[in-house]
Amino acid sequence: MNAIEIIEKKRDGGTLADAEIQFFVSGYVAQEIPDYQAAAWLMAIYIRGMSAEETLALTLALATSGETMESSAGAGPTVDKHSSGGIGDKTTLIVLPLVAACGVPVAKVSGRGLSTFGGTVDKLESVRGFRTDLSSAEFEAQLREHGIVLSGQSADLAPADGLLYALRDVTGTVPSKALMASSIMSKKIAAGARGIVLDVKYGSGAFMPSIEEARELAHIMVEIGRGAGRRVTALLSDTNQPLGRTVGNALEVREAIETLGGRGPRDLHEHCLAVAGHMLRLAGRTRDDDLADARALLEERLASGEALAVLRKLIVLQGGDGGQIDRPETLPRAPIVREVPAPRDGYVAGIDALRVGRACLELGAGRMRKSEPIDHAVGAVFHRQVGDEAARGEALFAVHARQEADADTAVEEITAAFSWSDRSRRPPGPEAILG
Amino acid sequence: MNAIEIIEKKRDGGTLADAEIQFFVSGYVAQEIPDYQAAAWLMAIYIRGMSAEETLALTLALATSGETMESSAGAGPTVDKHSSGGIGDKTTLIVLPLVAACGVPVAKVSGRGLSTFGGTVDKLESVRGFRTDLSSAEFEAQLREHGIVLSGQSADLAPADGLLYALRDVTGTVPSKALMASSIMSKKIAAGARGIVLDVKYGSGAFMPSIEEARELAHIMVEIGRGAGRRVTALLSDTNQPLGRTVGNALEVREAIETLGGRGPRDLHEHCLAVAGHMLRLAGRTRDDDLADARALLEERLASGEALAVLRKLIVLQGGDGGQIDRPETLPRAPIVREVPAPRDGYVAGIDALRVGRACLELGAGRMRKSEPIDHAVGAVFHRQVGDEAARGEALFAVHARQEADADTAVEEITAAFSWSDRSRRPPGPEAILG
Repeated sequence: MNAIEIIEKKRDGGTLADAEIQFFVSGYVAQEIPDYQAAAWLMAIYIRGMSAEETLALTLALATSGETMESSAGAGPTVDKHSSGGIGDKTTLIVLPLVAACGVPVAKVSGRGLSTFGGTVDKLESVRGFRTDLSSAEFEAQLREHGIVLSGQSADLAPADGLLYALRDVTGTVPSKALMASSIMSKKIAAGARGIVLDVKYGSGAFMPSIEEARELAHIMVEIGRGAGRRVTALLSDTNQPLGRTVGNALEVREAIETLGGRGPRDLHEHCLAVAGHMLRLAGRTRDDDLADARALLEERLASGEALAVLRKLIVLQGGDGGQIDRPETLPRAPIVREVPAPRDGYVAGIDALRVGRACLELGAGRMRKSEPIDHAVGAVFHRQVGDEAARGEALFAVHARQEADADTAVEEITAAFSWSDRSRRPPGPEAILG
Repeated sequence: MNAIEIIEKKRDGGTLADAEIQFFVSGYVAQEIPDYQAAAWLMAIYIRGMSAEETLALTLALATSGETMESSAGAGPTVDKHSSGGIGDKTTLIVLPLVAACGVPVAKVSGRGLSTFGGTVDKLESVRGFRTDLSSAEFEAQLREHGIVLSGQSADLAPADGLLYALRDVTGTVPSKALMASSIMSKKIAAGARGIVLDVKYGSGAFMPSIEEARELAHIMVEIGRGAGRRVTALLSDTNQPLGRTVGNALEVREAIETLGGRGPRDLHEHCLAVAGHMLRLAGRTRDDDLADARALLEERLASGEALAVLRKLIVLQGGDGGQIDRPETLPRAPIVREVPAPRDGYVAGIDALRVGRACLELGAGRMRKSEPIDHAVGAVFHRQVGDEAARGEALFAVHARQEADADTAVEEITAAFSWSDRSRRPPGPEAILG
């Protein structure tokens, strides 16, 4: 077996054997196969595609390329969730404590944000002292004792995926469904979750432009889960606006705290209940897969304050200042808050999420390069969402900025992100694909 | 314009603009575009193909990536020939002096052999003192004053082709017709020839397995020539046996000397007259493109000894010992010569050229790696060729070896390369595609 023969086989449209895929992935991680051969191989895979068997083999090769975590015996089987990325997506901050508050252990390994917006780790780092660089031993101990843990992505978990992703990023081989699906699933499998809820976005600003493409990606991931012995549910959701009312790290933490207190915006609240409900179902905590049952339990945990208390516990366990959860106004705040009124009467038809993301990136809420620092305070708050009515002059959105000039640019960009209609049209609800 | 966008465009089956191809090639040579991006690009080109316009643009980008040689005013427009590689192919050694002896200037840049057999440069280095590392100034001066020059491949001539070829070799992207055609033609164009005869092999041991594939490659190259303002003729020739009676560096030089003296084997003699005839035609030295006219002139130059005298002059001009041309028995000779008799009565139906090449490689006549030395003395001599009759026990071939054990292996391998028939069948003659 050698790398060139494996490249040639895929180049000519052949189907690779499990052993060939394993050979290539482990050879690449061991630096026996150079970047240029991996790049040629990825392009051949991109164009020729991969069968379900090949995609599963690639996922497992990536997942086992470094350390793998198994659910600790003391904690029981864990559930996890993954979002394919969205502007203003703070779902993890809400869903993790909520599910843990229902007695289901949750262990999550999360990345930092790249390109346009902060990731979950960046958001939580708005809280003073909070750390995510846990060792494997700390991770497993906290999970076992407290049933909730959130760690930054470790280099030892599915390292082949990290290496190949970086290479795909610079060789025009990112948007391949087989490669995307195996990348996402390899990390979840390596992190040890037995049940996985996938939040697959489609539309402007998402990797998948249409619901059809999102559905295809979701089916591939559900199939991988089946092959790898994990229960997987995929939720397809529309991204014709940012999720919730805030975009920006500390602003999103505040919104998460409000939502855990039962006072979140309707779209975010519903989205989190859907994701958390499926997580409870996969963990076997619903009667006969009854999601209404799950919903009732989740609503109760929000109303009682137990879910919020678990977020506070998570923060404190990982070195963070729990007082900032009790007093969200002490989280980082930008010196400039610019309120922007509606320019016309009408209904909000859409808020271009990608454009909002770019504006917030320029404010400093995200990073262009891996090593750049993030400004946790800046971002945007939306007073009106898709389907809402506004009269000319009423508060539409606010920009939180560090500099006046930055605020000017962001106001202009976000104003242009709005589209208007004379009738109210709510976005469609999520579609679920049950594995 | 950036490399990733150009990769994506070809990945998705698009047609690249001249400027995009130029940008990629010059960026790669300048090391601004890394190997892994070039590898992904080459694989996309391999699978998606290239239009005639793209192939021409790539050829010109490669050809102009370093120095280019123009026909010196004093020498007039030169003609060149290229062979797509064959076992025992010593055509250049014969055709160059022959054409120069007809008053047509010939300037050739030739490579060393890789993988299986020695190249023209390796063969001529059998002659004591002969050097091919000419500077551009030496090259042009010799061409202008003497009308014949042969240089080893210079790093400055089409450097992008050398770099991309090395990358293709290790990324499974060699046998793409567009990439092969542009690689071959870029070197010829950079070397300045106005007329080019391409000797395209097909069959066992050649890059192109069938005449149809060889014809397709030839048409692409003739088209490139048209676009680049060069006259090109392609000859398609069968490789169901080594060309001529010898394989091995010094053995082939001796056979070239015999052929230039009018005493060469029939297949080699005819092949060289065909190639040289088309070179004279492209140089405008035939009346009304009359090849019979060219043939008469060429036969005359062989018979008069003028062609052989030009080879001797070339050797001496480049530092070689002319006395070895007068006394070929002084060229390197192997200590062991093992004569092998025919194992049966019958007609030779085929001699597997690839197998012969491998056997001679193991004797030391070629190299596996770039830096390996070559044994100029070793090789094989065939007393019978395809179509010839042999009686059991008559001389069939001889192995020239350095060690007894090497001779044993080569005898076994070459014996197995023969196939036999009860009727005589001569191989087909060459087919010409005139540009």
